[in-house]
Formats: sequence, structure tokens, C-alpha cells
Amino acid sequence: MTNITANDIWSALRAIREKAPVVHSITNYVVMNSTANALLALGASPVMAHAEEEMEEMVGIASALVINIGTLSPAWVRAMFMAAEAARKRKIPIVLDPVGAGATTYRTRTARELIRAVPPQIIRGNASEIMALLETNTKTKGVDSTASSDAAVAIGRKLHAESGAAVCISGETDYTIGRAGVIRGRNGHIMMTRVTGLGCTASALCGAFAAVVSDPAVAAAEAMAVMGIAGEIAFAKSTGPGSLQLHFIDALYRLSADDIGRMVKIETEP
Amino acid sequence: MTNITANDIWSALRAIREKAPVVHSITNYVVMNSTANALLALGASPVMAHAEEEMEEMVGIASALVINIGTLSPAWVRAMFMAAEAARKRKIPIVLDPVGAGATTYRTRTARELIRAVPPQIIRGNASEIMALLETNTKTKGVDSTASSDAAVAIGRKLHAESGAAVCISGETDYTIGRAGVIRGRNGHIMMTRVTGLGCTASALCGAFAAVVSDPAVAAAEAMAVMGIAGEIAFAKSTGPGSLQLHFIDALYRLSADDIGRMVKIETEP
Amino acid sequence: MTNITANDIWSALRAIREKAPVVHSITNYVVMNSTANALLALGASPVMAHAEEEMEEMVGIASALVINIGTLSPAWVRAMFMAAEAARKRKIPIVLDPVGAGATTYRTRTARELIRAVPPQIIRGNASEIMALLETNTKTKGVDSTASSDAAVAIGRKLHAESGAAVCISGETDYTIGRAGVIRGRNGHIMMTRVTGLGCTASALCGAFAAVVSDPAVAAAEAMAVMGIAGEIAFAKSTGPGSLQLHFIDALYRLSADDIGRMVKIETEP
Repeated sequence: MTNITANDIWSALRAIREKAPVVHSITNYVVMNSTANALLALGASPVMAHAEEEMEEMVGIASALVINIGTLSPAWVRAMFMAAEAARKRKIPIVLDPVGAGATTYRTRTARELIRAVPPQIIRGNASEIMALLETNTKTKGVDSTASSDAAVAIGRKLHAESGAAVCISGETDYTIGRAGVIRGRNGHIMMTRVTGLGCTASALCGAFAAVVSDPAVAAAEAMAVMGIAGEIAFAKSTGPGSLQLHFIDALYRLSADDIGRMVKIETEP
Repeated sequence: MTNITANDIWSALRAIREKAPVVHSITNYVVMNSTANALLALGASPVMAHAEEEMEEMVGIASALVINIGTLSPAWVRAMFMAAEAARKRKIPIVLDPVGAGATTYRTRTARELIRAVPPQIIRGNASEIMALLETNTKTKGVDSTASSDAAVAIGRKLHAESGAAVCISGETDYTIGRAGVIRGRNGHIMMTRVTGLGCTASALCGAFAAVVSDPAVAAAEAMAVMGIAGEIAFAKSTGPGSLQLHFIDALYRLSADDIGRMVKIETEP
Repeated sequence: MTNITANDIWSALRAIREKAPVVHSITNYVVMNSTANALLALGASPVMAHAEEEMEEMVGIASALVINIGTLSPAWVRAMFMAAEAARKRKIPIVLDPVGAGATTYRTRTARELIRAVPPQIIRGNASEIMALLETNTKTKGVDSTASSDAAVAIGRKLHAESGAAVCISGETDYTIGRAGVIRGRNGHIMMTRVTGLGCTASALCGAFAAVVSDPAVAAAEAMAVMGIAGEIAFAKSTGPGSLQLHFIDALYRLSADDIGRMVKIETEP
């Protein structure tokens, strides 16, 4: 794997701003608004729909599909399977965010079944969630991560091997495991964990990047870098998580080649 | 049609602030929070409910009903028909926002059936959505508009003739077609399209104005003017769509007769 | 009842920040995002889930359960009963927010049935909502309060006597009626009523405090004090309800012992 440069990230961001890819999200109620705003600020075109009656047509106008299991119910799970199947037929990238996998059997089972039925191109979660997709003995406290990141990388490699998906494990360091190795990103700020749904936003941004970047692992790592850089810019202007959220959206909108070049912390290894 | 003056708009806004009309919204998950906040900032009283079990009673305390099809499902569609029927019986104004009409058959069909079953007083959407309510050969990319506004006005006149509704087509220029002609509003700022759901907010504000203004076309045009002026004030204080959204709410809350008089750009023609 | 001191409130807030109790909310669509952000800013760990398939497990990792009936439907009502029963078995505190009780029969009946089936530790609402839980002849205009607070205290005492719950009636003065009497809190600002869902946020914060404070009435009164103080700090920095909401979240995050000591207005009587 060649290194991901600041210029690569900037090129991808410019492509999103120029093409405004439609990202179809089937996501949880908590984050729909903030996710749509982040995608718009980035330059993408969000759509959200969950009815089986329109799933195939809606996927039909999308350039990427993001499935987030944060507030599941049976009707939504059926829509997720329909959407994933429609995305596979159209060969558009699928991102899966297994929110809360490990916290309940229903979530863990649904996420695993989705992966088996239609392997996504990218799976993004915190370490506990990613571990839960393979291990049965991991405890998750709510939707926060409790596993060490080092342990998670090993699991990420295993999940990548099993599923074929690029596996992105977010935390203080973001690890993205793809065909060619591990990409480590060190952007971001701890206060971002005090804003609800920034993990979900990260998954949505993975979808936008996957719409314009062919390698899923590269797309995911670039999305995480943009998240983290925007978060750092926002933190510097913030007095708490409320203002961080606002400045994060503005930073996504204004992010420049210079910001990326100056701030990005990303490295790859085989 | 006599011209709409700044004073007319201010009188309507004052009436909303004094009477705090209850606006019942059956709207999409993405925008519920931002819509409720916009209605509160304007001076109205939002309620949101979608259960058939309480639909008639909830409409019974409302002064306007806003139906927005942004995240449809069969149970919600049934509630929309019940609510519309209850609103007709009580003779309170109905606003329909056909979000994404044209993007999927389900949305287009549902919007058309709602119009046929209980003609709304106001239909507000972007040009593509409005066109989709009549034309079958219009492509919609997601929920954004792709049709030219000029072409849309012709369609708006046709939809007005067919449905009897005031038809409001939002875009760089907002066109409202009513009994007495076309009202053109030129307030607003392009960055408002980078905040999710400001179109949905516009429809909700149409409901609040329709609760205090008897002519639906005038109510819709006044609501669009207030949206646009608040958006311009907000843009001047913003560094991106995150801060625009915040300042938009503050501007709605603070909007004065002087702001309206100084900034409004509205004209009518037969 | 001994007085609640600033130090008591600070101790409870520190306990929340240290333990990060998981607060499971089954709440309405309008406020999920703002509620989750408020809980995170306070220091708690929000989870939201409504599927019967995972209800017992999700309650199993929570330290408090908050049930809010703001956007009811039959499936959600079933989940609320399941969650309440699971919380009772685990002996974790339950907070009920009867949003819109009195506005529709469905809401009033559901709230009463929840109270009868599994008595909550705290019931928090405005005066009209609390009155509706006992009286059949109270009219509620939307979800705002129309009853006088004095009258409501009498009803609060009655509801406390019947249900055993600490009853918290929010308004210009917040009244909390518990085993040992009435606690009056006078923090807060009228502009908070122009931000959607701050009442719902108050109920969520009651859950977080109840997770670390054994007396439900004390927990509720402390939560209301923190709400009100953060609201006053936010108001001082605001130009409208949009900026109030942002600064409220920041203020919750930054709230210090000094802020509480300087600003708290709370008194108890038998």
C-alpha cells in the first residue's frame, strides 16, 4: 500500500464537492439530522428513506449506501437487507456501522447477518463493536468502546479476512485494515466523544468518500482524517461540545488543501 | 392581487407571536427537531404526533396541519390521510411538502393521493418535486431540484389549477402561485441549501402563517419572505452552515418590522 | 427533609461525571439528538433503543430508564411497558415524562397505565400534564402548560400520594414533591421554553441524577437546578433560542462547584 498523502485526501474531498454524490443512509433516529448536515457540509447529497416500498428506487439514485443499526426494529432491518441487496446489484459501495453490537443480541445478530448476506465494502465502529462481530465474550457498555485498540486491530484483521470489508476501528487512533495493510490516523480530539453521533457521522462520510475513491480502505481512512482534522479545528474554537458540534460542521464546509496539508496525521504499514 | 407589503408581513408575524397558533406537523425524522425549533423561534406552538390512535384529537387542538412525506412508511401514510381528513372537517389549513416526489414512485403516488383525497391549501416544494406531481417524465436527483424555475412556474400554474392549492416553488427565486397570480420572492441565500431541512422548515412556517392569514398564497409568500430574510441575516453572521443554522433560529426570534421593511424583496403579478 | 445544598448538587454532578451512568431513554423523535447531547455534556452515557427484541438486554446495562411519551405509537408503547418491567426487576430508577398528557386520550391513558403497571420513581412534566394524570377536565393546549403552578402543587401532592413517585412540576418555579415535602427551585429562564425539548432534557437529566442519588425527589430537584443554572448561564451569552441551545450544552459540560454555589436557588418545606 502506498502512503495516503494530504493531496490524495484533498483530491477526494474536491471530487465530493464537485460531484455531490447521493449518499443514502438508513440510520438511527438520534443522528439523522446531524448526519445529513455533515454530509451537506462536506459537499455530498444525503437522502434518508427506510420504507421497503421505495428502497430499491432510492438506492437506484445513490452513489453509496450507509447502514447504521443504532435504533433497530424489525421493519427497518428488512429495509436494510433490501437496500444492501439493491446496492450490491448496482455495485455501489456499502458502509455498515454496527452501533451497539455486543450490547444486545439483536444488534450483534443483525450486524453479523447483514455482513453474511451482503458483504459491505467498509465496516466502521469502535473497538468493542468490531470485536463483537467476531467474539461472543466481549462486554459492551452502551455504545462506547471498552476494548483496547491494540487488541482490536488483531480482531480487525480477522474481520477483514472473513468479510473482505475494509474494517475501520475508531478511537484515539483510528485503524483502517484493508487489503494492503493497516492505516493509522491520529487526527481528532477526545471532546468529539461528547457529541452524540460523531461516530455515525464518520460512517456517513466513509460513504461519501467511497463514492469517489475506489479502494474502500483508502476511502475510509481519508474520511476519518477529514473527520479528525475538522474536529481539531472545531475544538480550537469551542467552549464545550455544543459549540464543537457547530464549528465541526463549519470546518467540514471550509476545509482547505492547506488545512489538510498542515494537520493530517496518517501513516500506513503493510 | 394587491402587493404584499412589509407591513403585511410584519402584521402576520405579530399575529403569530401573539396567538402562538398550534401547528401540528407530521414530518420526517430528519427535521423534526429543527422544525420544532424554528416554529418556536417564530412564535408558534409546534406539536408532532403520528399515531392513528390520537390523530383526530391532536388535529383538534391545532390551527394548521403540515404534512411532509420526507421519511414515509405505510403507518405514517395512514396517519397523514386521517389527519388531513380531520383538518378538512375542522376547516384548518393544510400544507403539503412533497419531499422527494419524483425520486420514488411511493413518494410521488402518496403525494398525489393526498392531494386528491383532501386538497391542501398550500403545496410547497422545489421545482422537481412540484413537477413530479403532474409530470411522469421528470427525474429527481435525491431531494434537490433539477428543473429550471421558469419551467416550474408553468407547472405550478397547472398544479394550482388542478388542485386549487396555492403552489409555492422554492429556489433562488421563490414563486407562489395563487388565485390572483404569481408572487415572486427573492430573499434567501444559497448557503441555506447546505443546511438540512430548511425547505421542510419553510413548509412548517407556511402552516404558521396560514393559521393567521386567510389567503393561502399570501400566507405562503409571507412565510418564504420571513425564511429568506432570516436566512440572509444569519448568513451575514456565519462561517458555514453550522453557524448559519444557529443564527437562522436567532434571527427568526428577533426579526423586527425594521428588518422586514429594509430587506424584503417581493413582487406580485397577475 | 433537610435542605439541598449547593454542595449536594455538586457531589451528585461529580458522581455522574465520574461514573458516566448509562441512561436508557425511550423518548420522542423530536428530542433524541438534543437529549443525547445533553446527557453526554452532563457526563452520563445515553443509549436509545425501542425494539422489543432488545429491550430487556438494553435495560440490563442501564443505571436508569427514562420513558417519554412525546411521539407514541403502539409498538413503542409495548416497548415502554417491557422496559419498565425490566427496570423494576433490576431495581433501577424509572423516570416518566408524560409529554402531552391531557392533549389526547391516547397519551393520558398510556401515561396512567404505565404508572399503574410499574410505578416510576420520578414523574416530571408541566402543570397541565401532571394534572391530566389525575383530572379528566383539564384542557391542555399542545404540550405547553396552562394550569397555575399553585393549583398544580396540590395535584402533585395527590399524584405523589397515589403513585409513590416523586412528582416534579416544571415552570417558572419548579416544584418537586417527594416523601418529605416540597422542594422549590427557582433557576432557569423563560427563553428556555423557546427551545424544543428542554423539558424532555430535564427528564433525561433526572434519570442521570437518579442513577447516583438515592432519594428520587432529591435527584429530580438537583437535576432541575442544574438545568436551570445551565440555562441562565446560556441565556447570558445568547441572542436567541438557537444560541441558547448551544450555550446550554456547553454550560452543562463546564458547570463548576462555583457556578452552582453562586447561582442555585432552591428551598425545601415539609
